Amino acid sequence: MPRKQGNVLIGQSGGPTMVINQSLVGLVETCQRERRVGRILGSLRGIQGVLERNYVDLGSESRKTLEAVARTPGSALRSVRKKPTPEECERVYEELKRLDVRWFFYIGGNDSAETANLIARMAQDAHHELVIFHVPKTIDNDLVGTDHCPGYPSAARFVAQALQGDDQDNRSLPGVKIDVIMGRNAGWLTAASAAARAREDDGPHLVYCPERVFDLESFVGDVDRVFTRIGRCVVAVSEGIHDASGKLIGAGSEKDSHGNVQLSGSGALGDLLADTIKRRLGAKLRVRADTFGYLQRSFAGLVSPVDAKEARRVGERAAEVALGGKRASGTISIRRKPRQQYAVSYETAELAQVAKATRRVEERFLAGSNDVTPAFLEWVRPLLGKLPRMGRLSELPLVEG
Amino acid sequence: MPRKQGNVLIGQSGGPTMVINQSLVGLVETCQRERRVGRILGSLRGIQGVLERNYVDLGSESRKTLEAVARTPGSALRSVRKKPTPEECERVYEELKRLDVRWFFYIGGNDSAETANLIARMAQDAHHELVIFHVPKTIDNDLVGTDHCPGYPSAARFVAQALQGDDQDNRSLPGVKIDVIMGRNAGWLTAASAAARAREDDGPHLVYCPERVFDLESFVGDVDRVFTRIGRCVVAVSEGIHDASGKLIGAGSEKDSHGNVQLSGSGALGDLLADTIKRRLGAKLRVRADTFGYLQRSFAGLVSPVDAKEARRVGERAAEVALGGKRASGTISIRRKPRQQYAVSYETAELAQVAKATRRVEERFLAGSNDVTPAFLEWVRPLLGKLPRMGRLSELPLVEG
Repeated sequence: MPRKQGNVLIGQSGGPTMVINQSLVGLVETCQRERRVGRILGSLRGIQGVLERNYVDLGSESRKTLEAVARTPGSALRSVRKKPTPEECERVYEELKRLDVRWFFYIGGNDSAETANLIARMAQDAHHELVIFHVPKTIDNDLVGTDHCPGYPSAARFVAQALQGDDQDNRSLPGVKIDVIMGRNAGWLTAASAAARAREDDGPHLVYCPERVFDLESFVGDVDRVFTRIGRCVVAVSEGIHDASGKLIGAGSEKDSHGNVQLSGSGALGDLLADTIKRRLGAKLRVRADTFGYLQRSFAGLVSPVDAKEARRVGERAAEVALGGKRASGTISIRRKPRQQYAVSYETAELAQVAKATRRVEERFLAGSNDVTPAFLEWVRPLLGKLPRMGRLSELPLVEG
Repeated sequence: MPRKQGNVLIGQSGGPTMVINQSLVGLVETCQRERRVGRILGSLRGIQGVLERNYVDLGSESRKTLEAVARTPGSALRSVRKKPTPEECERVYEELKRLDVRWFFYIGGNDSAETANLIARMAQDAHHELVIFHVPKTIDNDLVGTDHCPGYPSAARFVAQALQGDDQDNRSLPGVKIDVIMGRNAGWLTAASAAARAREDDGPHLVYCPERVFDLESFVGDVDRVFTRIGRCVVAVSEGIHDASGKLIGAGSEKDSHGNVQLSGSGALGDLLADTIKRRLGAKLRVRADTFGYLQRSFAGLVSPVDAKEARRVGERAAEVALGGKRASGTISIRRKPRQQYAVSYETAELAQVAKATRRVEERFLAGSNDVTPAFLEWVRPLLGKLPRMGRLSELPLVEG
């Protein structure tokens, strides 16, 4: 029997997703099978739990519990939004040594990759044998160097189903409907709303991503044109839309410790856009706005099956590569195979590559200022799984007589 | 072969639901089988379509199309929010005579029942052979004389799943989360949020229905107590909460033609409550608010299976009773059988009984000012279908060493 070589520590960080626990369980189950691993520790609230010495024993969790956790949204180990100071990174590093942690896995977005990278460099500088892997998650899909990111397909599926239904609702009681969708710097989720369309006149009729400058005047004109043509208008708009100077439209002022402005959990942008349309296009016009908010990343019982599978596999792969011993640090990326039928491979990438960087929606996916291209729809559809089909009456004309 | 005795006309009115088209298809398919029925007409946009002579031929729709429509949220015949004047009711009545309509079915809430009742009385006064049936729908569940109303169970399921996930999200990143739920005069949907709970510390921790006076001061105290006890707090609050004088908290001023104030499609109430908590309990506290909005009644691909079945059956039953010829008017109510296992029967009730009246959440279902009773949960659970199970780590303590 191989000698125990040290312990594993796992933490979750940043905003939760519908499948972040799939990655956690992929990590735990793979480590449970590896005899060189001593204990498998979970840090509660990410890096904060390390600073506070707040751990749980993950290695002794039963398979039944783990599988139930895997199907549950939210971060089972709790989460934190924290950018550690250099002094705190030093304390984390010392704590990892104290706990005899040889493999540290941090599930999170680009902020978490940055934290992992800082600690990895400390270990490297000290020639200490510590393997640090970042396991990607984000509903925003804004990590670089990967086809897409675990968590995004499920949130995108939520947005697409929401728009499918909302379009039926708008068709029933016509007017202007504005849906505000998550995505601070990248419009991936907002763009996914377009997957709701099946027929020529289906909404969303206008899609505004933060990759484009948002001009309130053009917006009013766009809505007016759609409404004049079909008598109704469904709009999908990113919470991160901004004017030419970069100033966010309708944003609050609260910032987190990474300097990010709080955008979700407020109806301000939706209300501002709705009020503008009413003021400009007529007070009697039926205008409504919904801000989808946290349901997009947490709705229970809704996942993309592709996402659930991939998130699990990304966790497993991170553990396999880290335990394989050939790399001191890294992250897992998903590469889409250039085939007719959707298939992916899992690759290992450099931590520094993911840290801090933000991947925005590519130019080839954006059509003008208010839509996506067919290429985007081709890219996003396999990620969502099969969407419900919306039926419609033939509306056969009545022959009087 | 029996002689054709006249035509059928069907309309949909008011806010759509996830299953309102099940009732439509139940009506159409039952009427298609009845040889005494001539043509089956659909009026586009309810009573408005009759005034504008805007009809489609429903009798010639294929079974395949109808079944796809049945599974689609929204009102397939489009809808309208319109309280017809006495003069308009007279015009509708004349138009029904002109079209040789012998059976008129109006799918809607209590406003629609009122309209149907007005026209039914005109026919009665003129001794004209016209059968008018109301087919109930509402996500608000506020129709009297029925155990529950088609449309409510699916919306309630959406709310319960949303709260299940949102509670996991709040557990991941603790703070105060406020969810604003539809229901203008009755708290049935808000109350359904409590079905999300499985464990003792699961949210929602506070549930505010419009059946109780809402006091901002007590609210702050309630949230403070929960937060002090468990370090987080999830709140479900009805959009219709009001102060002791009946004044709505945080409402806009737009009214529809029934005199109802517009509450949905605005984040104002959620933002007001969140701002109040921040101001009173600490600016550094993480406080977020989501207004679920129209997703509650329209989300594609989410229904309660019980609701889908019952909504279909209510449409079928309305057609059966109307075609049976024993009643000139009526509506269908659902009666729950007093059995261990959930079972219902469908009864015929008077139109006047449903018109105008609003059924509020019963006293026996409300606990204090901010919760529901076990009796409510027992009542609501069979309506929702099986909810997803939320897994949780055992969080086994780490034995250091």
